[in-house]
Parts: sequence; C-alpha cells; structure tokens
Amino acid sequence: MAVTMYDLAGAELERRPSPFCWRARMALAHKGVDVETIPCRFLEKEKLPKPNDNKVPIIVDGDTVIHDSWAIAAYLEEQYPSRPSLFGGETGRALARFVQEWTETTVRGGLARLVLLDGVRHLDTADQTYFRSTREPRFGMTIEELVEGRETRLSEFARDLEPLRRALEHGDFLAGRAPAYADYIVFGEFQWARSVSDFEVLAPDDQIRAWRGRMLDLFGGLARQTLAYGD
Amino acid sequence: MAVTMYDLAGAELERRPSPFCWRARMALAHKGVDVETIPCRFLEKEKLPKPNDNKVPIIVDGDTVIHDSWAIAAYLEEQYPSRPSLFGGETGRALARFVQEWTETTVRGGLARLVLLDGVRHLDTADQTYFRSTREPRFGMTIEELVEGRETRLSEFARDLEPLRRALEHGDFLAGRAPAYADYIVFGEFQWARSVSDFEVLAPDDQIRAWRGRMLDLFGGLARQTLAYGD
Repeated sequence: MAVTMYDLAGAELERRPSPFCWRARMALAHKGVDVETIPCRFLEKEKLPKPNDNKVPIIVDGDTVIHDSWAIAAYLEEQYPSRPSLFGGETGRALARFVQEWTETTVRGGLARLVLLDGVRHLDTADQTYFRSTREPRFGMTIEELVEGRETRLSEFARDLEPLRRALEHGDFLAGRAPAYADYIVFGEFQWARSVSDFEVLAPDDQIRAWRGRMLDLFGGLARQTLAYGD
Repeated sequence: MAVTMYDLAGAELERRPSPFCWRARMALAHKGVDVETIPCRFLEKEKLPKPNDNKVPIIVDGDTVIHDSWAIAAYLEEQYPSRPSLFGGETGRALARFVQEWTETTVRGGLARLVLLDGVRHLDTADQTYFRSTREPRFGMTIEELVEGRETRLSEFARDLEPLRRALEHGDFLAGRAPAYADYIVFGEFQWARSVSDFEVLAPDDQIRAWRGRMLDLFGGLARQTLAYGD
C-alpha cells in the first residue's frame, strides 16, 4: 500500500515549496516507497491527520502517522533496513544532524534574503496574509525590506556556502559517491528557492549548481518534474 | 611497535599547538595505537621523513610514512578495522569531510581573529619571524591588527558556532553517543587555542564548552595533560 504524504502547496496546488517536505519526499524515493501526496496550504491544517505538530510533512503508512521530517527519515530507515541507507549508520546519522543545523542556520537564512518575497507571492492570498503576519514581526521588517538589494548579497551567500562547495570536491554528493539524507536536507532549501523564484542563486560555474543538477536528476527527475523555475 | 608521529612544537618543546596534529593524535588514541611524538618546529622541516608535504603531522609505522591528517585517519581506519571506527562507514567519512570544511572555513578563521597573536608568541623566535612573513601578507595586515578588539568579536564567533552547538543538543559528541573523527577535527582547533592562549573563547554556559571538556577527558585526559591554558 502506498504511503500518503501531506505536502505544503502554493497558490497552485502543483507547486510544492516546503524544504522540509522535499526532505521527506526525497527520503521516500530513496527508499523506493510509493507515495501519494496530498497538497495542504498553511491555513488548511485542519486537514492533517493526528497526531501532528500543525506542520507538514506528515506521512501516513497504514495506521501509523509520523510527523516531522527527521522523524520520517528515522522511521523509513527503521522500516526498510535492507534498502539503501539514508544515514549510513549511527555516525552518519549524527553528522547528518550537523548538516541539518548548518543548513538551517546558514543556507536557509541566506536564501530567504534572496527569494522569500517570491516565495510569498506564490502562496494563495489567505496564506500570504498569514505568512506575513507571523514572519514579519520575527524579522523586524517587511519581506520587501528583507530581500531589498538582493543582487549585492549573492557573493556573501556564495561565500557562506564554501564548506558545501569544498566538500563536493571529494564526491558527487555530500554523502560521498551516492546521495543520502544529508544531501536531501540541503537540497530541500534549493528546491524551495527554485520552486518559487526565477532568481538564480548560484553562479553558472559553481560546483554546487552541478550538484543541484545531479539532485534534480535523481529518481527519474522527481524534483525536476515538479512545478518550478530554471534548471 | 609504536608509531612515531612528527608533531609541531612551540618555543617550549612540550607545547603542541597544531590543530592538524591534534586530529592525528586523537585518531591514534581512538584506535588505541601507542605513539611516540617527535617535536618539530616550523623551521625544522629537514627533520621530517620522506615523502612529506613539508607539513606535520606525519606518522611512521614500520616502513610506512603517511603525511596529511586526513590520510593518517584513513590509514588508521584501514589498518585497524576491528577497533572503534573513526568514520562509521562511507557516509560518515564523507560527512566528516564536510565537518572539516566547515571547521576550516568557519572555526579556524574565527579563532585566529581571537588568539593568533598569542599563537605567534608561543613559537620560538625563528618560527615567529617565519610565521609572520608568510601569514601577514596573506591577511593583508599584521597579526596585531588581525586580533585587535577581539573581545567585541566573541559574540560573532559564538553565533558562527551555532550549527555545532545545536548538533550537540542531540548527543554528547558531534558524532553521536561516542566521539569520532569529526569531533577530533573540530576539537583540534579549540585545543590549538587553549594551547597558546589564556583568552577564553567560549562562554561558561556554552554547550560547546561542556563538549570541549568531554574531549579533554578522553583517553585518560590526553589533551588536558599537554601544556596549555585553562580548562
């Protein structure tokens, strides 16, 4: 039986912007699990199966409901131990956590200052209002102010990505010769950016861009085939 | 037969400041390999066994000479497969590489701007001249200028360490329940700092400081017993 996954949707239901949902989506594909996604907007959380944390992704596998992207990856790893590993053992799992923390403190903030306004514009009207009212007080500014002058910040963003760029000199993927959950964590952020914005955040000759291309090719082009901009 | 390791020494031969050498030293201890260290200053590189890259650490194990800290860890992992793993498999190895790149782009630069002048002062006179003449052109400033106003940069350094701090919320060590090579990579930088400076770079309540304490306790207090400042 296919797993059901509740996935954040933009104004168009085919647009799936959530980086957290992309982590789960790629992890499911990595394990070869068939999935049916159910689009859900920010203000449609009453749709979600329980228990939940009022957030997506959530997967439903038979009677089991799992929420939180990390918990979903851990569940898949435990349920399908004979399929390709997401973590590559306990050390790999702990270090994937470090990659996640780096991604959330460095990549996410950098991308937000480049494309968050585009992100908002791709939400439906009610979600736009909700999103602005919860995020702008947190930023202490409007989203327009947050992204203002974004072209001038591309070099700073490129510099912040240096650890990732250097690590990719040693293998096609962050996790080495084959992709693993650490790759999906970082990729989710870039997939969010390209799903909402035609503003290219990576230089043409950046090795990270080549890696993003390899990620888009995985699983029969799963992430590439979803409604998005650019390559 | 014990392994011999060539280790960078300060003005006092008992002071061992190199973060790269500490990676190797901890990796050897992790594998339970007895080691005899040979102190070597920057300008004593003619002492080094060949082949070498004019840098320490270098280990000599029987007829085998291995230079470069990463190559040493890989060698130990291969030679002693039945002892506790340094990498925890291929994914863990690739992600340790990411930790290394993050450490070298983020932790090292931050620490240099705090304690590099203390580092220079602990070199012998000839090494001080050599070090300044090679590094100051690279920095485009004197080392005094580099560290000027360091107290005001502590909060920025603390913020740059956030991914490490958050990852340590999930386990005693970066690699999880037990330390592994990723921990030794990051620890090497902090061990350099404390080996040359009494300027405390971590706040008393910082979880990274507690982790550093656990690292100092490893292997019978190996790193704690070496000539250094503070706890």
